[in-house]
Amino acid sequence: MIQIAILGFGVVGSGTAEVIEENKALLTARIGDEVNIKYILDLREFPEHPLGDRVVHDINIILNDPEVVLVAEMMGGSHPAYDFTVAALKAGKSVVTSNKEVVANFGAELLELAREHGVSYLFEASVGGGIPIIRPLQTDLASNKILAVSGILNGTTNFILTKMIREGADFADVLKEAQRLGYAEANPAADVEGLDAARKITILAALSFGVLLDPNKITTKGITGITADHIAIAKAFGGAVKLIGHTEQLGGKTLALVMPFFVPAANPVSHVDDVFNGILVDANMLGRALFYGAGAGKLPTASAVVADIIDILSNKTSERKMPVWKVATEADMASSADYVCRRAYLVEGCVRCAEKAKAALKTEECVMLEGGRFAVVSAPMSETEATAAFASTGLEAIVSLPVLD
Amino acid sequence: MIQIAILGFGVVGSGTAEVIEENKALLTARIGDEVNIKYILDLREFPEHPLGDRVVHDINIILNDPEVVLVAEMMGGSHPAYDFTVAALKAGKSVVTSNKEVVANFGAELLELAREHGVSYLFEASVGGGIPIIRPLQTDLASNKILAVSGILNGTTNFILTKMIREGADFADVLKEAQRLGYAEANPAADVEGLDAARKITILAALSFGVLLDPNKITTKGITGITADHIAIAKAFGGAVKLIGHTEQLGGKTLALVMPFFVPAANPVSHVDDVFNGILVDANMLGRALFYGAGAGKLPTASAVVADIIDILSNKTSERKMPVWKVATEADMASSADYVCRRAYLVEGCVRCAEKAKAALKTEECVMLEGGRFAVVSAPMSETEATAAFASTGLEAIVSLPVLD
Repeated sequence: MIQIAILGFGVVGSGTAEVIEENKALLTARIGDEVNIKYILDLREFPEHPLGDRVVHDINIILNDPEVVLVAEMMGGSHPAYDFTVAALKAGKSVVTSNKEVVANFGAELLELAREHGVSYLFEASVGGGIPIIRPLQTDLASNKILAVSGILNGTTNFILTKMIREGADFADVLKEAQRLGYAEANPAADVEGLDAARKITILAALSFGVLLDPNKITTKGITGITADHIAIAKAFGGAVKLIGHTEQLGGKTLALVMPFFVPAANPVSHVDDVFNGILVDANMLGRALFYGAGAGKLPTASAVVADIIDILSNKTSERKMPVWKVATEADMASSADYVCRRAYLVEGCVRCAEKAKAALKTEECVMLEGGRFAVVSAPMSETEATAAFASTGLEAIVSLPVLD
Repeated sequence: MIQIAILGFGVVGSGTAEVIEENKALLTARIGDEVNIKYILDLREFPEHPLGDRVVHDINIILNDPEVVLVAEMMGGSHPAYDFTVAALKAGKSVVTSNKEVVANFGAELLELAREHGVSYLFEASVGGGIPIIRPLQTDLASNKILAVSGILNGTTNFILTKMIREGADFADVLKEAQRLGYAEANPAADVEGLDAARKITILAALSFGVLLDPNKITTKGITGITADHIAIAKAFGGAVKLIGHTEQLGGKTLALVMPFFVPAANPVSHVDDVFNGILVDANMLGRALFYGAGAGKLPTASAVVADIIDILSNKTSERKMPVWKVATEADMASSADYVCRRAYLVEGCVRCAEKAKAALKTEECVMLEGGRFAVVSAPMSETEATAAFASTGLEAIVSLPVLD
């Protein structure tokens, strides 16, 4: 019997208990021993829950119990989740987590601490919910240099954008519907303003390039400003508007950003709809691979937490190599102004204006639209170059979007 | 310095050497030691190749060299690849392979042999080329019961079907083009008749359900009979015709089959086009996840081989649990006649005939087409039930396809 503890008995915490109970025989076979949830740390009591008698309110009970070899932290928020993680690692307990805020802000330090104490710190559930992405990046893609990672990392905003595209609905109306369906929180800021995706892309950047950027400092644009005009660009060329987290290396520095992109239909990411997430990895030998699935939700996310638990408990004898992340300084951070991609513009103007725009943007890709407007996609260029090129036309863009090819 | 040997210096074998050389620094960092290709076994000589001096023609040189700890088998075909694998495992050397024929036909025995001799037998590259699928099924999805796996497992046929749908071209013409482009072999039978996909789906079935079916005995239909009539079904409802390998458990038995399906647009598999592969896993906690990428090709496939090499060489101290596969008897094999799904029919007939078909197939999904034809999709039922239901209408189907929802 292996004893573990759950910190935080909310959606993912109770889901983790459910996965462990539901697939118990399977876990026992995989691990070679039975897993028992000895403690559940929460401020609340759960008298009706079958595991209600495991609830404790003092972290020290868990920290001081030598029987507990692993702690699953699913409290959310930075504090006290970070502090409890530090204490658990120092007490020689492995930690698994779904807490992207803690991983994105303190991951480098926590991995180092795990290494020092000969334990593991795993966080598959922190990005893409149940979708396997962290472990594949570290194992299946171990033979590759990662060139870029781009993805739909937030289900709430993807649900909203999908509805806006399909039904021509307004952002505010769809947000209300998403809240009613439980896909968006009462305070949706972290989702719709891109911070949730920013945390996830900094984790993916750290895994890919070894540098942990500050998720609060990377260029982050949400979807609150997305209107029918942006969607008109996607309809003009075929494809979708998606909130994309993107990371790559640029002149020896690491770039990570979150913003709405126009994603042409040829890119498989454009077909990742509704609440699903999809993460595209570009690797030097493999080429492109897409990982698609439920990016959130109780059981999918819990399934990733339990995969980490199984990984640790079934590999007790091996020395696990925790990745080394460098905390980024200003000098490690690339500027999003230098990011090179194609850029799409919706412009009011006649055929003659469109010709002018095509020349300035070095492109033939242009579609005349109803109402005296046109949509044009530039050749690949940095934001700085594109801004200068477009300004030279004397035209005014109604809206513009970077393109994820 | 860790010494390894490559068996077979064809496309994937030379690609593996290329990945090891190209990403050498990365491999050394991951493994903690340098990997050296000490021998390359091939019937040919490669005097121009930088590794030409490593070529040997006698497997015993490799088997008898205690320095060689790992053998990468990329010879293709059952013999002598199987025999050399047996000999290497018995000599205490781990084996990695891209050879789906050997894994699908002898996997159970080879895994057992690896277990007996305390070494590893890994085969990530045998399914989906470079796409991570084998390891995610065993690690990231370890907390889940697998319910079903369905996928596009063969890039050649997917290229042909994509072209047929997009351009309305004939099978024979597109096959010729695929051969010209190097996507199809001169003798394309293993691809277009489904045997390649059958081998891969039996491997995925064994990983999911622990039972290794005989790839030559599962229901296997290729795409040689696909015509504009099948494509008309996909166009009528929106979606695509895809060659799908599918496995699930049915009444305690294991079902695996390969056949052309109509895949509606709502299923992400329908958007997996050209030479790409896409594998959809249905798991009891995670729900659906799709793994998409290059299903073949020199460097993508080699990248998966090298991922297995890194996995073994960087985890030398751990006791790896090789999965246990039972070789299927007749009693373990479910019949494809019992497989329950919706089924699509293209029928010649008027509105009154369509009403009759809808009633018999218990459905409202029916589209009248030009030329006095209609397309109808049944409620979910087994092949046996569907055949009886359709026969009761007295109508004759022009073509029919199972539906992958």
